[in-house]
Amino acid sequence: MSEGDGIRKVRLVRSGAVVDDVLVAEEPVEIRVDGRPLAVLMRTPGPTAQEDLDLVAGFLATEGVIDGADDLAGLSTCVDPNRPNGANVVLVRLAAGAKAKPERFDRAQRNLYASSSCGLCGKASIDRVFLQAPPLEARVDLADDLVSTLPDRLRAVQPRFDATGGLHGAALFDAAGGLLTAAEDVGRHNAVDKVIGRQLRADAYPLDGTVLVVSSRAGFEILQKALMARISAVVAVGAASSLAHELAMAGNIALYSFVRGSRFNAHR
Amino acid sequence: MSEGDGIRKVRLVRSGAVVDDVLVAEEPVEIRVDGRPLAVLMRTPGPTAQEDLDLVAGFLATEGVIDGADDLAGLSTCVDPNRPNGANVVLVRLAAGAKAKPERFDRAQRNLYASSSCGLCGKASIDRVFLQAPPLEARVDLADDLVSTLPDRLRAVQPRFDATGGLHGAALFDAAGGLLTAAEDVGRHNAVDKVIGRQLRADAYPLDGTVLVVSSRAGFEILQKALMARISAVVAVGAASSLAHELAMAGNIALYSFVRGSRFNAHR
Repeated sequence: MSEGDGIRKVRLVRSGAVVDDVLVAEEPVEIRVDGRPLAVLMRTPGPTAQEDLDLVAGFLATEGVIDGADDLAGLSTCVDPNRPNGANVVLVRLAAGAKAKPERFDRAQRNLYASSSCGLCGKASIDRVFLQAPPLEARVDLADDLVSTLPDRLRAVQPRFDATGGLHGAALFDAAGGLLTAAEDVGRHNAVDKVIGRQLRADAYPLDGTVLVVSSRAGFEILQKALMARISAVVAVGAASSLAHELAMAGNIALYSFVRGSRFNAHR
Repeated sequence: MSEGDGIRKVRLVRSGAVVDDVLVAEEPVEIRVDGRPLAVLMRTPGPTAQEDLDLVAGFLATEGVIDGADDLAGLSTCVDPNRPNGANVVLVRLAAGAKAKPERFDRAQRNLYASSSCGLCGKASIDRVFLQAPPLEARVDLADDLVSTLPDRLRAVQPRFDATGGLHGAALFDAAGGLLTAAEDVGRHNAVDKVIGRQLRADAYPLDGTVLVVSSRAGFEILQKALMARISAVVAVGAASSLAHELAMAGNIALYSFVRGSRFNAHR
């Protein structure tokens, strides 16, 4: 594993001795949509530029800016010799005729940053998600022995976690338990957007019938991203929050939390 | 521990049996500054309304909207019988004569949501923080035996963690290891803003010479908040990211990560 591969070498003091170690890399990436800045994400770069494009494609889809690959006319890092850190800027061009219109950008920006309603509550947050992505038709529960094996299978494809202990992992599996793709990031939401965006860029989107596995906790935003992508089940190694539970129940997403071997919570 | 105390009761299936359990509560809170919506945070409410005021005061300070308590003319939850969820809105009134001016609001909103520069990089992110909060004068290292005991002392004052396993904790200690205050939240940045905001509201701000202990990882934003509040050391149970390391080194904040008893990383 080398520098640039999502890790940074540092010198630390441990038990009184100076040691070389690696930290998970964290750097900002800016998303510009048709020239307008949408957001800056703190993410783990690499191993190649493709992961940033996956991240941005997934972020745009789960935040409701695009419906799918057809809405993307262009997606590239900012290559400009006068901009030494152009790799940390992803330029998005939306398709002209597609549903992706300026209003969607504005709405996404509003959703990201502030709500327009006074008297906000969890129910209102869920209703706002449903405006963009209605509940799934029916909940499809997973077999117990599938649920209990998925975290280990995610861990097996998380090459960088062991090196730094600071990365979150996410993976998509098909309904039969076949691995579709996996990603890592310092941010747990980013890891989810990376796997969603990679499938979108591979024209395998929306993700009906798939299972999202996360190495971390499942909060409201993880379930929101899952619903936007039409993922049918979420398996979390960590705890679920109350609002994640409520969105899963109302949205017909099968949710499993605290999955530690054969012991886990099935949310009903 | 009762419902409303930052937890929500749910019914789950575990090992085939239906059981009652509690999840960490997660609900949105909206921050309105002089009538303008600034941000919506997903946070754990309660036990009382004071924690939301702490959270918002800390958020405003660490995002650079206010310099201290003098900049706050009013801070309250939205009490309006026509708004059933008014408790999820915090109304901020900025002091007229203070430094807290509309430009600061605008800058905070820009910082939160997008950068104005193409060619973003970690170095630029650090420089932007230093524009608002210069580096501390000199790094003050902590004694090894103080570092190694702090996580257990944080855990001892995290009443809700054991119930849900889904809460992050943060605590402030003075240089001699005396506990100043502690807080919990579903979001690790929120827990930090709560302890900072509580000290600010108690007129014990800025926090020169204090030690911030977090039950989670230390990323860039945790170190950014620490520097804004003039905290002198950060002790994290989890991993540090590369950019957190760089900001700590450049900002003269003593940083300790992966603190597991007497074994930990001292960043130098």
